[in-house]
Amino acid sequence: MIKVGIVGGTGYTGVELLRLLARHPEVRIEAITSRSEADLPVSELYPNLRGHYDDLAFSDPDPERLAACDAVFFATPHGVAHGLAGELLGRGTRVIDLSADFRLRDAQEWASWYGQPHGAPELLEEAVYGLPEVNRSRIREARLIAVPGCYPTAVQLGLLPLLEAGLIDPDHVIADCKSGVTGAGRGAKVPSLLAEASESMKAYGASGHRHLPEIRQGLGDAAGRPVGLTFVPHLTPMIRGIHATLYGRLTGEPGDLQARFEQRFRDEPFVDVMPAGSHPETRSVKGANICRLAVHRPGDGDTVVVLSVIDNLVKGASGQAIHNLNLMFGLDENAGLEAPALMP
Amino acid sequence: MIKVGIVGGTGYTGVELLRLLARHPEVRIEAITSRSEADLPVSELYPNLRGHYDDLAFSDPDPERLAACDAVFFATPHGVAHGLAGELLGRGTRVIDLSADFRLRDAQEWASWYGQPHGAPELLEEAVYGLPEVNRSRIREARLIAVPGCYPTAVQLGLLPLLEAGLIDPDHVIADCKSGVTGAGRGAKVPSLLAEASESMKAYGASGHRHLPEIRQGLGDAAGRPVGLTFVPHLTPMIRGIHATLYGRLTGEPGDLQARFEQRFRDEPFVDVMPAGSHPETRSVKGANICRLAVHRPGDGDTVVVLSVIDNLVKGASGQAIHNLNLMFGLDENAGLEAPALMP
Amino acid sequence: MIKVGIVGGTGYTGVELLRLLARHPEVRIEAITSRSEADLPVSELYPNLRGHYDDLAFSDPDPERLAACDAVFFATPHGVAHGLAGELLGRGTRVIDLSADFRLRDAQEWASWYGQPHGAPELLEEAVYGLPEVNRSRIREARLIAVPGCYPTAVQLGLLPLLEAGLIDPDHVIADCKSGVTGAGRGAKVPSLLAEASESMKAYGASGHRHLPEIRQGLGDAAGRPVGLTFVPHLTPMIRGIHATLYGRLTGEPGDLQARFEQRFRDEPFVDVMPAGSHPETRSVKGANICRLAVHRPGDGDTVVVLSVIDNLVKGASGQAIHNLNLMFGLDENAGLEAPALMP
Amino acid sequence: MIKVGIVGGTGYTGVELLRLLARHPEVRIEAITSRSEADLPVSELYPNLRGHYDDLAFSDPDPERLAACDAVFFATPHGVAHGLAGELLGRGTRVIDLSADFRLRDAQEWASWYGQPHGAPELLEEAVYGLPEVNRSRIREARLIAVPGCYPTAVQLGLLPLLEAGLIDPDHVIADCKSGVTGAGRGAKVPSLLAEASESMKAYGASGHRHLPEIRQGLGDAAGRPVGLTFVPHLTPMIRGIHATLYGRLTGEPGDLQARFEQRFRDEPFVDVMPAGSHPETRSVKGANICRLAVHRPGDGDTVVVLSVIDNLVKGASGQAIHNLNLMFGLDENAGLEAPALMP
Repeated sequence: MIKVGIVGGTGYTGVELLRLLARHPEVRIEAITSRSEADLPVSELYPNLRGHYDDLAFSDPDPERLAACDAVFFATPHGVAHGLAGELLGRGTRVIDLSADFRLRDAQEWASWYGQPHGAPELLEEAVYGLPEVNRSRIREARLIAVPGCYPTAVQLGLLPLLEAGLIDPDHVIADCKSGVTGAGRGAKVPSLLAEASESMKAYGASGHRHLPEIRQGLGDAAGRPVGLTFVPHLTPMIRGIHATLYGRLTGEPGDLQARFEQRFRDEPFVDVMPAGSHPETRSVKGANICRLAVHRPGDGDTVVVLSVIDNLVKGASGQAIHNLNLMFGLDENAGLEAPALMP
Repeated sequence: MIKVGIVGGTGYTGVELLRLLARHPEVRIEAITSRSEADLPVSELYPNLRGHYDDLAFSDPDPERLAACDAVFFATPHGVAHGLAGELLGRGTRVIDLSADFRLRDAQEWASWYGQPHGAPELLEEAVYGLPEVNRSRIREARLIAVPGCYPTAVQLGLLPLLEAGLIDPDHVIADCKSGVTGAGRGAKVPSLLAEASESMKAYGASGHRHLPEIRQGLGDAAGRPVGLTFVPHLTPMIRGIHATLYGRLTGEPGDLQARFEQRFRDEPFVDVMPAGSHPETRSVKGANICRLAVHRPGDGDTVVVLSVIDNLVKGASGQAIHNLNLMFGLDENAGLEAPALMP
Repeated sequence: MIKVGIVGGTGYTGVELLRLLARHPEVRIEAITSRSEADLPVSELYPNLRGHYDDLAFSDPDPERLAACDAVFFATPHGVAHGLAGELLGRGTRVIDLSADFRLRDAQEWASWYGQPHGAPELLEEAVYGLPEVNRSRIREARLIAVPGCYPTAVQLGLLPLLEAGLIDPDHVIADCKSGVTGAGRGAKVPSLLAEASESMKAYGASGHRHLPEIRQGLGDAAGRPVGLTFVPHLTPMIRGIHATLYGRLTGEPGDLQARFEQRFRDEPFVDVMPAGSHPETRSVKGANICRLAVHRPGDGDTVVVLSVIDNLVKGASGQAIHNLNLMFGLDENAGLEAPALMP
Repeated sequence: MIKVGIVGGTGYTGVELLRLLARHPEVRIEAITSRSEADLPVSELYPNLRGHYDDLAFSDPDPERLAACDAVFFATPHGVAHGLAGELLGRGTRVIDLSADFRLRDAQEWASWYGQPHGAPELLEEAVYGLPEVNRSRIREARLIAVPGCYPTAVQLGLLPLLEAGLIDPDHVIADCKSGVTGAGRGAKVPSLLAEASESMKAYGASGHRHLPEIRQGLGDAAGRPVGLTFVPHLTPMIRGIHATLYGRLTGEPGDLQARFEQRFRDEPFVDVMPAGSHPETRSVKGANICRLAVHRPGDGDTVVVLSVIDNLVKGASGQAIHNLNLMFGLDENAGLEAPALMP
């Protein structure tokens, strides 16, 4: 059994790690930390876990206890992993960070978007961006993983086949994204109240959102050159799910787009290219570690539209983190991730 | 008092006409027709109207009774107004059609999208497209109004200032639209069930939707040339509301976009240009005849993003229909349309 | 025009007063106070009000300015009206308190439920409980109104006909109530997040809720003796609405219950006894100042079931407050309250 | 591997069987039937199953193929199992019926509630009511199981400890139940539309609902005498979940109610008695085969309140059906049912 720790377990990605790991055959949770909820049984905060983790309680972060784990997940706000990752790595514990701390390769860019200096620039070279569909072999060898953000996962998977093949104009890519409210976390904020967010739809961050540089970095890697991206996220009245609607302008005759997408993800267990003409629904991935894609070319014109859906808490966070763990420890990629989505 | 009739009153735009007209000081409803619900009191089908229309019942469509009205609203599926409008006009009754029957000037194009011949091509020349922000003076003189569709209203209002001034490339306009489920009508269809549509988001009609030619026609009028539009509608888990996110590529330095939008709609009672940096929410227009707009230029780049929200049943249908009525009969434009949106 | 002030206008009952008063022909808002949002235009916090109150901003509470009003609404947490009501009354301003401060006649009982001494026991004798269906004539003469709570309004209206006529056992009355989340206010609390409250149903306060003594007081007045009430509120995943399901045990043959209910509320503009066999929906009162009732006697047995629905923010708060204002100032009872509910 | 068939697999209980059985280690699905969708791959109707059942398609009901199974689930409207169960049993195939066909022991009573004669009264004696918490040993030996309804499961589990011990007056029991909309099935009906059922709460069947006789039968067995039950179901705007709020009048001093509930269900894997003072949320059982209970005695009075929550599609239908299968075939009771609920 692989011993794992979770730092910052009270948020939605933390409880989602617990939910998924409850069915993982090779993992045992050694510690889950929370300063604010120390000593509280996890099943008291999350009653869905009653009967599954009855002996597990939140504890104050204790480096000794975490260092005794084979791997530690960080399900924390940005900045926390900066302070602890180095010590853990030095003691032989692998780190899988679900926060934004190691996603950008450029410490300066990180600092400019997060308004504080990068806390561990010396680790950036080692950090591997944990998108298995791009970096599988590097993940297998990695000690420090930056799990991609939710929007970046949905957007990159939808655009990779086009940018890698040079089929669209990289200067004018549009990602219109819609997210459920768990994307905003479990913080008590007025705009996240049911009375405020329900029965409504709105854009936010239209002039700039922190996921923008991460997406640009990944798309730039795929295109082999900088990508001009307009990214507009929207808040949608649902708990889970991201729907990315992606628009690119074809630079020439693209050939069979459907075949190209199917080919690109043929061996990927967690990307599902749907049949031509499909419109994937976010509910078809609710609770499951899967990205479903469909590619359209309206009127056979020069615009290609890709529809990409994930569960922001699973393929967009905790499920993808476990996928990384499975790769790092040579386990079945599917371990803990086999359950179908909950539908209806 | 102006005597009005409503044909096809059992759907959502029908009941919305009743809700709004209940507070209209100059209108009296003479007849509301429904073949399927003839003799049923309207307040039995729509208990929110108990106490407001206690003597009003649905009746079988009776041309005599309708022709005795000053104006008749059609809140019907496409094709119905084709059959009745001519007779009513001939007898001096003005027609305000909320369906798609007279929105397209080209009968051939109509036939190709609706899969049946146009039933009244001889009326097309007379029909006025009822978007007051474009056609106010023609509406004042009109006998036959084609009330714009919900998506077309939200999209056109957001793009008019840009296309009229030639600020964006007309060949590559994108309209990513999100609609509440009343946009699909009151028909009993599995995909519209709460159990199917709730907690989910999906695109539909990505390869072609019936509102596309209507939007293209209106945008083309504004641009003075054909417009290349990619239009992707999405189903959103809410009852009412459309959020249109519109992307255009600037052809040059646009000047002060905020000022331009404010200037364009300065005298419009039902278009609200929000302050720079705003993100309008659909709930801010719930139940109200208003379009709220915000214009963004992310990173001062060459892409302009317009956010446009309406209530699909009000400014996108019944409210706009009443606005047309007010204009046609020389009433206060606001009559029946003054109530603020219901928020929260 | 009657000059009114609103103390504590940033919460849901405050904005609902603004929404309803925007259409009131006889009222002008002189001041709306908020310590936390002083100087903020109301339409910035509540964009649905853009175009309606463009010159109105929140202001620090200023007793001089409030005392210059004919009436002041308190839309505040409990305890605030205690401190200000006396002074305003002394200066001739009438007070309509939407909080719980003056609902209980017994200051000791108030103190025990609210965990602090009653701050103005000397005003209790003068305060009139503002349920027009019980106290209309006293309200007309009142200077200080305690607007009933939302649950108490729905429960009392449903049980009055039974208790006043002695038809049910007063020792064993059950009120199973379901409320939308605006009942919990606009405070930023984790359990009120969409991600927590949506797609779920739960009871709360099953062992005792602050509305219990208020309901018992009102039911006791109707019965002429103390009433034994079990009251279980539930949180329901919707924005607005209360559904009270009320159970009483018949003490004998009750006669025609339907007729009795219709008779009791025959002259009430804001109580709608629905036809026998009806099941009122909360959406049929969304945004409207109306209570809809239905009475059932399953299997002609000894249990009577009353279904009672209101909009918690309208008939359960701000609408009823305006009804009280109308009565106090001799206006049409309907003024500002005529709009039908928003449905769908 | 146990070979199973599913008759009527297109509804919500059918897909839920597929979702749960996808993770069952001992079961293989041999056939899933649907007249209307014959030849359609199941993953086309339910895209959440893509990657899980890629070779499985709906087929016309074929008695030969079904009789080759070890067990057949009926996920059909009432009346269908009547026609097929006898033949299957005769050929050695066990039958687990999720419909109402064999729940009532009295064929006459069945006929009166369902408006048609009972189609297989000769099987009633053999049928075992599949509530494992009551009939575990009989289920182990059974050939024909009537899986309890959703409301009956939630209500019986909450009241068993009280009625079995004679603690409450059996003549006056109240069950106020709230259900998500999947309880109404996947039929295309206007009242189940998101636009109709969302943002609203209503009771239905207040004068009599088909689950009433089933609940009365079960409660009567527990009490050892007929039970007088008032049962009012409500439609709640959520996809899944039942919340039963149960009221009984104590006949004397009941002792430690919390301990009694814990004792009654101590060895039950799928009933969770929560700590004293709890208010279980339906979301805490979303997708999981568990009933969570809490018992309250407000004000230490003579009324006991039990809160009981289940997922209507799991513990209220398909999960409980699989639990029965596990018992009938001597498998681990948990097989296929171990996953925690999906929360948030």
